[in-house]
Amino acid sequence: MTIYDISKKAGVSIATVSRVLNGSDKVRPSTRKKVMDIIEKYDYTPNAFARGMGLHSLQTIGILCADSSDLFLAKAVYYLEQELQANGYESLLCCTGYNLDIKQSYLNLILSKKVDGIILVGSNFIGTSEEENQYIKDVSTQVPIMLLNASFDYPNVYSTLCDDYTTMFEATSSMLNAGIEDILYLYNSNSYSGAKKLSGFKAAMEAHHIPDYEKRIHFFKGDPQQMDDIADFVERLAKRNITFHGVIASEDPLAIGAMKYAQRKGIDVPNDLSIIGYNNSMLTTCCTPELTSVDNRLETQTHQLVQTLLGVLSGEEMPKKSIFSGKLIKRGTTLF
Amino acid sequence: MTIYDISKKAGVSIATVSRVLNGSDKVRPSTRKKVMDIIEKYDYTPNAFARGMGLHSLQTIGILCADSSDLFLAKAVYYLEQELQANGYESLLCCTGYNLDIKQSYLNLILSKKVDGIILVGSNFIGTSEEENQYIKDVSTQVPIMLLNASFDYPNVYSTLCDDYTTMFEATSSMLNAGIEDILYLYNSNSYSGAKKLSGFKAAMEAHHIPDYEKRIHFFKGDPQQMDDIADFVERLAKRNITFHGVIASEDPLAIGAMKYAQRKGIDVPNDLSIIGYNNSMLTTCCTPELTSVDNRLETQTHQLVQTLLGVLSGEEMPKKSIFSGKLIKRGTTLF
Repeated sequence: MTIYDISKKAGVSIATVSRVLNGSDKVRPSTRKKVMDIIEKYDYTPNAFARGMGLHSLQTIGILCADSSDLFLAKAVYYLEQELQANGYESLLCCTGYNLDIKQSYLNLILSKKVDGIILVGSNFIGTSEEENQYIKDVSTQVPIMLLNASFDYPNVYSTLCDDYTTMFEATSSMLNAGIEDILYLYNSNSYSGAKKLSGFKAAMEAHHIPDYEKRIHFFKGDPQQMDDIADFVERLAKRNITFHGVIASEDPLAIGAMKYAQRKGIDVPNDLSIIGYNNSMLTTCCTPELTSVDNRLETQTHQLVQTLLGVLSGEEMPKKSIFSGKLIKRGTTLF
Repeated sequence: MTIYDISKKAGVSIATVSRVLNGSDKVRPSTRKKVMDIIEKYDYTPNAFARGMGLHSLQTIGILCADSSDLFLAKAVYYLEQELQANGYESLLCCTGYNLDIKQSYLNLILSKKVDGIILVGSNFIGTSEEENQYIKDVSTQVPIMLLNASFDYPNVYSTLCDDYTTMFEATSSMLNAGIEDILYLYNSNSYSGAKKLSGFKAAMEAHHIPDYEKRIHFFKGDPQQMDDIADFVERLAKRNITFHGVIASEDPLAIGAMKYAQRKGIDVPNDLSIIGYNNSMLTTCCTPELTSVDNRLETQTHQLVQTLLGVLSGEEMPKKSIFSGKLIKRGTTLF
């Protein structure tokens, strides 16, 4: 019986089970009771509790992420830490930024803190050249390296990821099948996962024989937390006579920015403009209409990653790569 | 010349200067040029660069936060890490959850990693009893402890905070002065800062002699990232004949939940219902109308905290407590 089984039986998320175990006050009493009843029924003892609430934990996992204020990365770190804690591991996190030298420096720092394994969160740790990935190879000789939402083939490196290519292919196809062919594609990162999403979009456009689709692919170079800047960007595109009746964004904030543009111009979403975001973040339910978005199975990914790491650390044979499919969560910004 | 001076001269945030220094691609070329021009003009060399891009940094700061997926805490961690990095310090972060035993365990873990100072992010590390704060006292004999948005008087413990009491008093008074007296107050935390906000609200209601205001104060016990749950909660309150023409929330997500409730019921915001959030997070610009919210000066706070820490570490006499005033940022959910 794992924390995952408890969450399934209780019909709540792993995060909620963790919150109950960690004494958070952000759980409804009825939910807490439901979880505790199942824990008692199956006599579940999380490893951390067996070890005395983690007080005498000996093992530490290092986590690196580029930017803790990115909604997707922050959520990933949260899930990872909760599940590690529930399994009796403590974690140390470094936020590295996007500069290769500094990432390398942090990887060595965290290794020097005697961690048992290292998790790299997000696909921006993987470069396109052998040279860029050398720092990961170097460290993998000493501890297992786990990649979340990225992939890299090397001994002692394990990958868990969403198939962003196929997932974006399918999301784009849904829009095309609904008869919307002039689709603006907005993205803001050329990371491993960013490149996969873009390829998936292009492949769907090719498969549907859409002419000149590339003129509607645009890179937003700016702070993705500034919705007004994103809306300005879309407005400038529209002024350059780039027409579109659909928007697909590589991140939810870009999609929200496109909604702001539509609102300024009095364009009816979803009747005259369909919008799809990506990551299914908390932003999707903050706006009106609510945002249709791709769920890239972050909680499932983090669960698999931790289970793989625990297996590796206890000497078991574990899958080198675990790949999940994302899913389009339909809300108010699309009619299909 | 500090990173703060550069940001002022360039008219951009410290975070943006850091992004430029760290080679992030999330900066517009024009902004990057503006920042680089000022750096060159004043021949600014951030300490990290002087030390070779932080590659040979010797000093490490430990950061503890309860929950990295909380928007406010995540942003605080981001600002702290960026400014520490710009000053040549690396940082190690632990996300502790809300359980006292586990917080204590993490504080000892981070201390064992030979950090030069420890930052506790958010007011939930400070309890109301001497006993609850003993773990902080114990560690403060070894390294300086810096509190962000909390306060605790003890040798070698330094505090940087927003005066949440006065700030909430003033925000509430703005609404009362606009003639809106039946105000629903929503909160979800009894932390140090949560308690200050609530007291500020109550004091304003008392000062304006509002009768029976306490029946409109409600604690939301649930996941603050679930907007629909918050909207359900407000709907249940309304069904219990709790009338209100204003909502003040201790966190932006609660305010967004109240907006969702209004939208479901066809209540016109801001004409028939005024709403104020708190933290001035990215959520404020994701919704329609945009949310009026209190800016609690997070970036200024984190800057002051790091400067104080750097001073303490170099043996200077530094202020034990730095207190800033928050500011109401008026947007579309209020008419005043």
